[in-house]
Amino acid sequence: MRNTLILLLLLLFVLTGSQRYMAQSNRAADEAALKALDIAWSKAAGAKDVDKTVSYYADEAMVMPSNSPALTTKEAIRAMWQGMLGAPNFSGGWTPTKVEVARSGDLAYVTGTYELSETDAGGKPVTDKGKYLEVWKKQADGNWKCVADMFNTSLPAR
Amino acid sequence: MRNTLILLLLLLFVLTGSQRYMAQSNRAADEAALKALDIAWSKAAGAKDVDKTVSYYADEAMVMPSNSPALTTKEAIRAMWQGMLGAPNFSGGWTPTKVEVARSGDLAYVTGTYELSETDAGGKPVTDKGKYLEVWKKQADGNWKCVADMFNTSLPAR
Repeated sequence: MRNTLILLLLLLFVLTGSQRYMAQSNRAADEAALKALDIAWSKAAGAKDVDKTVSYYADEAMVMPSNSPALTTKEAIRAMWQGMLGAPNFSGGWTPTKVEVARSGDLAYVTGTYELSETDAGGKPVTDKGKYLEVWKKQADGNWKCVADMFNTSLPAR
Repeated sequence: MRNTLILLLLLLFVLTGSQRYMAQSNRAADEAALKALDIAWSKAAGAKDVDKTVSYYADEAMVMPSNSPALTTKEAIRAMWQGMLGAPNFSGGWTPTKVEVARSGDLAYVTGTYELSETDAGGKPVTDKGKYLEVWKKQADGNWKCVADMFNTSLPAR
């Protein structure tokens, strides 16, 4: 009986310790996973793949582009990407520069810069350079999805 | 000896359970605290108090306004606010609409809308309506500070 109790105690201590250790190593893994996800997302946009591009958003995602109210429906978010990726000679993408994950591994944010080009109505090539801030949330199935996505130009106002 | 072990076991179970309960109730408290902080922050800006306004940022904060690269130094962030709050007849503020906190209570994001007015160079009153996305991080002293702050206009491009 006494040995059983000691074993139980040891087990509890080991479990508590290993949970902490796992939280640490999961955090580094989550940061690497989010960086890779963000780069893959940019590639999907660069390939003008609308379906794949919108698949990175959570169901409740909010997208916040300039000169528009926040987009909160799947339809509005899809329409925005369809317009952007469907622009004449669209090309470009974005690169994450900072990823930070909560200790609990359920919430994170990513910042970075983008560079997107297209041909304007007058047939002239135009390039926008800007920055973005994304918030990601780990879903019930363990996959990270973007819940808030905001971006704006870094170029001077015309 | 056996009773001591049983007591120890009980104590461990109670501690584990109460930690979980505290995490839940802390989360609701954190959400309420962040909403109140964001409203107080807006009031400081409305009162044109530059010192108080910049005090809501963490040391490593990044501010991401339109038509500018990301601001990453205290000096650049302060200069931006000084310019904004010092505009002729500046008035207005912002209102949080959504607050979400990580389970671990160390990271959170806030979204909302702003409305800011001033008098332009021609003496005409102008109002900008837009939205924002803030990421907050709990500091070592338990206070929440903003680590990433992005905003852009919701009005159509001129």
